[in-house]
Amino acid sequence: MKFFIIETRGKLVNYKEFEKIDFNQITDNMVSLLGKLYPICRSITGNGLRDTLKIISDIIPLKISEIPTGTDVFDWKIPQEWNIQDAYIKNKKGEKIVDFQKSNLHILNYSRPINKIINYDELKSHIFTDKNNPKNIPYRTSYYNKNWGFCMSEEQFRNLPKEDYEVVINSTLDDGSLTYGEYFIKGQKEDEILISTYVCHPSLCNDNLSGVILSVYLANVLKKISNKYSIRFLFAPETIGAIAWLKNNEKNLDKIKGGLVATCVGDSGKISYKKTRIGNTEIDRIVKYVLDNSTNEFKINEFSPIGSDERQFCSPGFNLPIGSLTRSPPGSKKFKEYHSSSDNLSFIKKESLKDSFEKYLEIITVFEENGKFENLNPKCEPFLSKRSLYREIGGQNNDNHDRIMEFARKWVLSLSDGETSVLEIANKSKIAFKDIKNAVNSLVNVNLLKEVE
Amino acid sequence: MKFFIIETRGKLVNYKEFEKIDFNQITDNMVSLLGKLYPICRSITGNGLRDTLKIISDIIPLKISEIPTGTDVFDWKIPQEWNIQDAYIKNKKGEKIVDFQKSNLHILNYSRPINKIINYDELKSHIFTDKNNPKNIPYRTSYYNKNWGFCMSEEQFRNLPKEDYEVVINSTLDDGSLTYGEYFIKGQKEDEILISTYVCHPSLCNDNLSGVILSVYLANVLKKISNKYSIRFLFAPETIGAIAWLKNNEKNLDKIKGGLVATCVGDSGKISYKKTRIGNTEIDRIVKYVLDNSTNEFKINEFSPIGSDERQFCSPGFNLPIGSLTRSPPGSKKFKEYHSSSDNLSFIKKESLKDSFEKYLEIITVFEENGKFENLNPKCEPFLSKRSLYREIGGQNNDNHDRIMEFARKWVLSLSDGETSVLEIANKSKIAFKDIKNAVNSLVNVNLLKEVE
Amino acid sequence: MKFFIIETRGKLVNYKEFEKIDFNQITDNMVSLLGKLYPICRSITGNGLRDTLKIISDIIPLKISEIPTGTDVFDWKIPQEWNIQDAYIKNKKGEKIVDFQKSNLHILNYSRPINKIINYDELKSHIFTDKNNPKNIPYRTSYYNKNWGFCMSEEQFRNLPKEDYEVVINSTLDDGSLTYGEYFIKGQKEDEILISTYVCHPSLCNDNLSGVILSVYLANVLKKISNKYSIRFLFAPETIGAIAWLKNNEKNLDKIKGGLVATCVGDSGKISYKKTRIGNTEIDRIVKYVLDNSTNEFKINEFSPIGSDERQFCSPGFNLPIGSLTRSPPGSKKFKEYHSSSDNLSFIKKESLKDSFEKYLEIITVFEENGKFENLNPKCEPFLSKRSLYREIGGQNNDNHDRIMEFARKWVLSLSDGETSVLEIANKSKIAFKDIKNAVNSLVNVNLLKEVE
Repeated sequence: MKFFIIETRGKLVNYKEFEKIDFNQITDNMVSLLGKLYPICRSITGNGLRDTLKIISDIIPLKISEIPTGTDVFDWKIPQEWNIQDAYIKNKKGEKIVDFQKSNLHILNYSRPINKIINYDELKSHIFTDKNNPKNIPYRTSYYNKNWGFCMSEEQFRNLPKEDYEVVINSTLDDGSLTYGEYFIKGQKEDEILISTYVCHPSLCNDNLSGVILSVYLANVLKKISNKYSIRFLFAPETIGAIAWLKNNEKNLDKIKGGLVATCVGDSGKISYKKTRIGNTEIDRIVKYVLDNSTNEFKINEFSPIGSDERQFCSPGFNLPIGSLTRSPPGSKKFKEYHSSSDNLSFIKKESLKDSFEKYLEIITVFEENGKFENLNPKCEPFLSKRSLYREIGGQNNDNHDRIMEFARKWVLSLSDGETSVLEIANKSKIAFKDIKNAVNSLVNVNLLKEVE
Repeated sequence: MKFFIIETRGKLVNYKEFEKIDFNQITDNMVSLLGKLYPICRSITGNGLRDTLKIISDIIPLKISEIPTGTDVFDWKIPQEWNIQDAYIKNKKGEKIVDFQKSNLHILNYSRPINKIINYDELKSHIFTDKNNPKNIPYRTSYYNKNWGFCMSEEQFRNLPKEDYEVVINSTLDDGSLTYGEYFIKGQKEDEILISTYVCHPSLCNDNLSGVILSVYLANVLKKISNKYSIRFLFAPETIGAIAWLKNNEKNLDKIKGGLVATCVGDSGKISYKKTRIGNTEIDRIVKYVLDNSTNEFKINEFSPIGSDERQFCSPGFNLPIGSLTRSPPGSKKFKEYHSSSDNLSFIKKESLKDSFEKYLEIITVFEENGKFENLNPKCEPFLSKRSLYREIGGQNNDNHDRIMEFARKWVLSLSDGETSVLEIANKSKIAFKDIKNAVNSLVNVNLLKEVE
Repeated sequence: MKFFIIETRGKLVNYKEFEKIDFNQITDNMVSLLGKLYPICRSITGNGLRDTLKIISDIIPLKISEIPTGTDVFDWKIPQEWNIQDAYIKNKKGEKIVDFQKSNLHILNYSRPINKIINYDELKSHIFTDKNNPKNIPYRTSYYNKNWGFCMSEEQFRNLPKEDYEVVINSTLDDGSLTYGEYFIKGQKEDEILISTYVCHPSLCNDNLSGVILSVYLANVLKKISNKYSIRFLFAPETIGAIAWLKNNEKNLDKIKGGLVATCVGDSGKISYKKTRIGNTEIDRIVKYVLDNSTNEFKINEFSPIGSDERQFCSPGFNLPIGSLTRSPPGSKKFKEYHSSSDNLSFIKKESLKDSFEKYLEIITVFEENGKFENLNPKCEPFLSKRSLYREIGGQNNDNHDRIMEFARKWVLSLSDGETSVLEIANKSKIAFKDIKNAVNSLVNVNLLKEVE
């Protein structure tokens, strides 16, 4: 039997597999992977996405799915595949004033090809800037309206002379496919935990390479140690990728007992959890427990249908128990760098990445260790002395660990009605989850308690 | 299709019928009607009540019911009809020291006739004053104990010489009938909203001519614009009138989906809402929404069986969803003028009347516009771009109205499960009811949503 | 018909039997009984326990049960019976340095016999002290591990010379029986209220002779006046005694509608109530009502499986509606004298005992007087005037007691749906339980209300 034992102060201890984990090394590995993935120009389809999944497969071998252009996925249709080789704007002097090679954010993502001399006014209608963020190149897309365009900083745009420009976008929009990857760790149960992260954004670090790299290394740890639930990692393009995956897996969704959308986990903001649409599922309670018992500030937000792929997972027809654990949530007021060239490598903080990683691992560990038990001797307390589970000398009233474990066993016996989880017992008793779970294990060992499926 | 569109700041805008409403003119009309009704000596039966209903009928033609004396109405019996021509007390010098012609409050309402010389001690046992309010004539009644009496100020009473007095009450108590009036606006549905107000009090303004005049002009506006629910206005004597109406309409009460008892709406106190006995019905939630989103102070009180006709409507055998929206509630500590000659024309504030009128209209409008809808595409978000309900360029994060409407549509799609009302979606999303309802309408138009009966 | 009428200020008034109660005399009687019981060396079996029950029987004649050694009681077995005549430790000079005759706390309760010269090191392993409480003799037991030992103050122990000692324990551990006593007051109903207190502790006053003496005199009062519910008083050794009683009465437990474990009711701390495991039963609501309406500070704690015999009564297989009303709860931080020689006669405060007694009596009185009623005229208000239950002159708004009773009747009629108790009506209306119950009685008398079983 395996013991996952959690400290209440945000550190995993005592569990021999976990003791071997070198969180600093993992953080370094995440940052190194971030460096490799950052330059690639990704989109919701195409080779940038494929290359990204291939690099990930060097660490955790993904199962890749390709969904052909034109496939119906619920109310949507898989679009044509977009690929791009180069793009630039040249001024009259022939100087490249905007160059895709320098930043892939310069291109309106999914731009159709063009090669033309145009005047300032026509150019203007194809230039995207962010007036609120005048120094940065914004990230803009046009997946479902055929268009072309360039993104640049508002400051650069203001200084453009009113002259003719050469605009070149060397892209293709052809029938092809949409790609996603999965990594599946089989557990004792068919029931699954889903960790989903989106891989379609180009050179943007927090949103969402941070979620990608955390997921990769979380899978890399869990493949060695987790075993009660199966755990599935999904790397898909946002929205259309999640929709395609849901379409292909519609019959298996009832296996998902909880999950998280991993995104924006590397900035210096405090941890934020967005609840599932249902709002009080096991994953909601577990995340709250882990955050309540950490030493860091955090914020828990109600579900809203504005956000990332939880919009699909929690759509009313599925209503899956999937929340999202981030630092500064995407689009929130504190995340000014969102969808701009400021969301770059230097925006990611190693300590934040490491802390996010630890929180994800703790949450999954509590999920694994949680369970419901039934007291097999519910009438009066059982006689614990004959099972060496009670102190020998009565009357004492000190607060040492033996006493806490004695209390923990009493709480477990009192509340284990087959409906109340280990986590709820920890919450009600105000005794650490670890101690309650150890009390559970000691009572299971003497046949006073059994797990309820 | 009709749009009722509500501003969150207490003003109705954008709806073409509502734009025509001149609230100042309506307020002037209310005050003018108040002036006409004030001098009449009303009671729970009799010609004063009939005259009042006749004057109202000049504005909204009432359907009048007459219930004969002796009719059993649940545990009660309709009493004899009371009419009065004159009443006075003369002192030894033959001076009228109390004169019904100067104030109808001087008479104990429902006094039997008398014409007699009596001594001070006998007189004393038929004089009613209010020691807590020594300058005012109190309003007192004796409907069900045959009695006679006069009301005067405590100050006047203290100065009465101990001499003989001539007391004359020229009244009749005969078999006749109890009168009430109704105004019914037929809607698309048979389901009804009930606005009930009592018309039995004599020269008292806030309690309750204020409720009467507000109801009259509310009906006068709504007869032109409301159309989903039917709306019924009841003008009846308090208690026995409401009981008689309930008796006569017992089989139709399940049509009443919500309602308000309109009383004490003209004083300068803040708005107060007394909940229905059930406490969380649609009318309760709507009133709370309208008050929460107004710029004025307000108070929401739990139901109590002390009060006005909600005592009958909410009696446990009916338990109708009817609350009461007042300013200073009748009998409350802040309403010192209650049931006294100080509750006169000058006690009514035009601004208060106008504000009360607007609140009633807003509440009914939200009631009309509320509803439950079902998302017809519940699996994943629908593809809104192809229906021109989504921005063309992705990645932006600004807060303009288009964006709010985009969010509103997402909230509507997420929460429209056929159980959750438009109002609840507005509350959960913190987006204005108006915007949510417009989002609903846009989604109904593209067949992504349908109303649930 | 009997009226139990309660003042909201913590004093019982107006009820003729209660008026005769002399609480000061009862308090003196409790203290006198305390003095008689204090010197006896009790344990979970044996003659000290029997002698205690015999003294109690002089006041309320108990029904005594003897459960033989070896009897299976759920997961437990009745242990051998323990009796002790004498015990001491003599030093080399032959001086008794520890003498059972001076304090029965000196003996490890349930010590097996011994008579031996031993060296300091062996003695040391059989000496129990409390380092946190170095001046006091601690109370220690070894019921289920055969052992022998002495308890002394840490200060005395530190000064013991390292020499040989003569240890003598003149005790017996033989087959015999476990004893408990019951006092039963038959009511109109078979339904029972259970007051349980434990009688196994030796010379310790607050824990728990205080609970014993309170229970004795509570029974002594209630045997004369209570009559709706039957009331059972249980005097049993803690844990094993409660378990044995539960085993013997398993088939009758569904008669118990509420109860309290009486312990630690004599110290100067504020009143504390520990809820039943269910948490919102009638006894929980009644205790809260009585404490809310007293003038003293109090504390209400959630149930926990750490404590006294509520651990057995509320074990999940029984889950009885039994709470515990104490002053400083046993084992709590404020009760430093717990399980030590400082919990002696001078630790008990007469005023506390008296206040605890009054609270127990009030709680039982409200329990007796509570009930659920049904409005027999639920459609509209009944016509109270014809039943002389309404003022003759209408329109008044003063706050005298007649008016409060009028309101009380309205509340009773509005809320008496057969589900809502008198107590809940008192809580919702904010009118005193006494007034609500009197209103109930007046309405029952005119057949507008009937009690629901």
